[in-house]
Amino acid sequence: MKFFRGLILGFVNASLNRKARPNIIYMLMDDLGWGDLGVNGNLHRETPNIDELARSGVVFTDFYSAAPLCSPSRASLLTGRLPIRNGFYTDNAKMRNGYTPQNIVSGIADDEILLSELLQKSGYRTGLVGKWHLGHREQYMPLKHGFDFWFGAPNCHFGPFDQDYPRLPARPGLGRGRAGYFSIPAFDDKHTPNIPVFENDKMIGRYYEEISIDRNNARSNFTNTLRVRALEFVQNSVDAQKPFFLFFTPDSSHAPVYSSPAFAGKSRRGKIGDAIMELDWAIGSIMESVKSLGIMEDTIIVFSSDNGAACVGPVEQCGSNGPLLCCKQTTFDGGMRVPGILSWPGTVEPNQINNDVTGLMDLFTTGLALAEIPIPSDRFIDGKNLINLVKTKHTKNSRKSSPSGTHFFYRGDTLGAVRRGDYKMHVYTWSGTKASSIWHFCRGQNVPNVTTEVQTDHSKAPVIYNIGQDPSEKLPLPTKSAEYKQQRPILEKIIAEHQKTLVLGTPQLNYCDDSVMHWAPPGCEKLGKCLPTPASNYAKCYWDH
Amino acid sequence: MKFFRGLILGFVNASLNRKARPNIIYMLMDDLGWGDLGVNGNLHRETPNIDELARSGVVFTDFYSAAPLCSPSRASLLTGRLPIRNGFYTDNAKMRNGYTPQNIVSGIADDEILLSELLQKSGYRTGLVGKWHLGHREQYMPLKHGFDFWFGAPNCHFGPFDQDYPRLPARPGLGRGRAGYFSIPAFDDKHTPNIPVFENDKMIGRYYEEISIDRNNARSNFTNTLRVRALEFVQNSVDAQKPFFLFFTPDSSHAPVYSSPAFAGKSRRGKIGDAIMELDWAIGSIMESVKSLGIMEDTIIVFSSDNGAACVGPVEQCGSNGPLLCCKQTTFDGGMRVPGILSWPGTVEPNQINNDVTGLMDLFTTGLALAEIPIPSDRFIDGKNLINLVKTKHTKNSRKSSPSGTHFFYRGDTLGAVRRGDYKMHVYTWSGTKASSIWHFCRGQNVPNVTTEVQTDHSKAPVIYNIGQDPSEKLPLPTKSAEYKQQRPILEKIIAEHQKTLVLGTPQLNYCDDSVMHWAPPGCEKLGKCLPTPASNYAKCYWDH
Repeated sequence: MKFFRGLILGFVNASLNRKARPNIIYMLMDDLGWGDLGVNGNLHRETPNIDELARSGVVFTDFYSAAPLCSPSRASLLTGRLPIRNGFYTDNAKMRNGYTPQNIVSGIADDEILLSELLQKSGYRTGLVGKWHLGHREQYMPLKHGFDFWFGAPNCHFGPFDQDYPRLPARPGLGRGRAGYFSIPAFDDKHTPNIPVFENDKMIGRYYEEISIDRNNARSNFTNTLRVRALEFVQNSVDAQKPFFLFFTPDSSHAPVYSSPAFAGKSRRGKIGDAIMELDWAIGSIMESVKSLGIMEDTIIVFSSDNGAACVGPVEQCGSNGPLLCCKQTTFDGGMRVPGILSWPGTVEPNQINNDVTGLMDLFTTGLALAEIPIPSDRFIDGKNLINLVKTKHTKNSRKSSPSGTHFFYRGDTLGAVRRGDYKMHVYTWSGTKASSIWHFCRGQNVPNVTTEVQTDHSKAPVIYNIGQDPSEKLPLPTKSAEYKQQRPILEKIIAEHQKTLVLGTPQLNYCDDSVMHWAPPGCEKLGKCLPTPASNYAKCYWDH
Repeated sequence: MKFFRGLILGFVNASLNRKARPNIIYMLMDDLGWGDLGVNGNLHRETPNIDELARSGVVFTDFYSAAPLCSPSRASLLTGRLPIRNGFYTDNAKMRNGYTPQNIVSGIADDEILLSELLQKSGYRTGLVGKWHLGHREQYMPLKHGFDFWFGAPNCHFGPFDQDYPRLPARPGLGRGRAGYFSIPAFDDKHTPNIPVFENDKMIGRYYEEISIDRNNARSNFTNTLRVRALEFVQNSVDAQKPFFLFFTPDSSHAPVYSSPAFAGKSRRGKIGDAIMELDWAIGSIMESVKSLGIMEDTIIVFSSDNGAACVGPVEQCGSNGPLLCCKQTTFDGGMRVPGILSWPGTVEPNQINNDVTGLMDLFTTGLALAEIPIPSDRFIDGKNLINLVKTKHTKNSRKSSPSGTHFFYRGDTLGAVRRGDYKMHVYTWSGTKASSIWHFCRGQNVPNVTTEVQTDHSKAPVIYNIGQDPSEKLPLPTKSAEYKQQRPILEKIIAEHQKTLVLGTPQLNYCDDSVMHWAPPGCEKLGKCLPTPASNYAKCYWDH
């Protein structure tokens, strides 16, 4: 039946398709923390549109990213699989956070199946507006992986690379990888090109050049540019009478944060607040467009973030993880618990709260279910269909007092923790740096034997939290308590089963090479923006933390 | 005009009064933290009724208690004055949190003017349902201080005192004061009576005796009892055709927390969550009653808490301060920033957020303004009228990007910090205990030079935060920054002016005496519950922290 429907998709009336299969808008913010939204208790309540989106549907309170940083998290959303399975990790060193800086050699593996690919094949019009971050060499780019349309950049808006930043010393035997924007020693313009912005498969300019970012004043109009492109994509999709998938991934809340002059100083929170207020406004604008085009009841909108807020450097560059422990880069809840909002007026009932253990990987499976596409059966899929957990006009799921679901907290190649229901067990911890460092990922927080400055193996005496009672991970259960003794074997068994059946993906984030940087991206000729490509210096990437 | 109106109040039609002057319901929770409400981002969202109250009016995000613990905070609400002015502090030792255990000798001074007294005089029917905590000797009790009706207890529900707790060793030269429920060494029944519950001026029983509390299982029906009494008071006031003031002060969220069997295990948060869910239900019941009696538009409801959540002992006994630093007992925001909700349907517009620096002392002035009573002019009043800060059908106050207002953070006799607008300056810090202690008031948190284990005078190099950007007080402004240099003289001037004009109240929390405990409260004869009163051992109270 499904197969037959697939065959005739091209022939049936497009508006019929739209009724049967909803449009899908996934909005994925960058380094926005759990506590950055009014609806999640941000002290300043500066996100009225996102809060309204939340009221119109479901807030998932226990929604996790699949990794404590950007590239692996995004790869997991689109594949429905943990980074350890889809290859978005490094084993150059233990428990290191790899991602895709512009000298990364690899990207999303061809044998991974992406949500965008399946939606595109099944008749959806697919668009990515914003950051990609799954690899930037030709074979890894969005249009090769299921997107009909792309406007945005392949990497973060780090830079400018043509100023007098200190030069990175060569590391003997290692490539010049980067592992966190603050520690990226930028080069002069002869050594590092600025990141290009693409429209489809051609660059249209570079950050800090044609795409203006005033880093000193945290100003750029780029969020508005992305907003306009998203609105155009929605409008064009409606005109084309096809169901659409919009993946909206602005990155202004990632340091160096920025906002348009119209939002300068609007927030009490400083620059990060201005950026978030503009994102909220842009999202409100997309919501308004969906409404005014009359497709609100045919469109599901999901809002989330790629990982917890970063908390290094000045507070003006940092989001908020609310009451959660630590930040981006860690396997504590502050690193991986992120906002989770789902709205589908007319189908999903409003004002719902869901406390199940859910997350970004579920968006793969949910998207396929919405589009009536079978889940791939030839590989392990971590995601589940979120619609099965919420109240809809068809189903009567109600809130449970005990949450269901399991989540594995990986940092690079290492499993740090597992959560099942209300219990989270840490087997390997690392805050990442010394508490005295300005790079400390648990700033102002200190839980003895948990926020460890060095990598610490707890497998012989795991740290267990009742996350329901202690969501801030402040007070581990006493090892002699009945609760600890009851939970430990349950959680250890879950890990053992996971590890027994785990098929490791080939690590994609191991090798760097300066020759693969954006010297001469497609389209550079037309703009006269091609730079000479240096010789290859292919080597293992160095990942700091 | 006002004077004349006062004179004729007794003669005019009561229902006319009600229209002109709203009923006032203040709901003050006990040790409920800023982060305990769904509307403030509690991870579990278990307070639908309070959240609904918030949506129907104003959320004050920067709402402070006048003290980091119970008795002084309550005295300040009712007097509109800081504890250092109204006498609810101790100078037995520096920066100590005194309160009113049952061996305290004093209470609210007769020359303080209470909101309840002024409302009663002006024709309001005044009722206290719940904990009093402003002194329990005859002259300090609620009916002597402006309340027509009282049902509740004068002290916390500590106990039971008839079990084999270790006996408190005598402290040479000091009375047997107590300074925190966990450190209260309870006595056997010959040494310490259980706390009585009063109806008006007569006891009707004692906690753990007639008023059942099963401490082991955290069970008691007392919240429901208070709810029923509150509903009766509202109904009786409507029947009496008089405007009313209900001060509703349940204490089940104060350790040892409790809830009715109907709420046992309902919350993911454990016992504290069960208690809060029951409080939310009780509050919903009062809201429903106000609605069904047809007085919703004639009734203003304010919801708050006496201080930040406590965070000592097991997490099941602890509320949440969300992203704020430290807990009850401290001058950090976690000790004193509390929920602040105001609802007055038909007059105050719904869905408002106010970020001004506000607090419990404002409820004195707001209450007087609502009742058209002049503010006392013979003394300094710290409170201001909250209605002037919000949008009403008459006024168009709108949200400001920079908050107004000033707050002084005292702990006992010592000024710890001051806040003006978005800046908070700490001049004296003390977390209260060693970080290694289970009594640490900043559990899991550690901000160097701020969460100090010993009392630390910062007056020579104050610690300044931009609370707008850094509400978690994690990253003090660098002393060399322009922002620091700009703010320091402003904040120092505010302190200097405050101290220059400060008239110290006579400290009421200095002396303890076991003979003043509840041996033979009024009404004990009728119940056969009088205990023999021991000889006086009047001495200075000992306050731990």
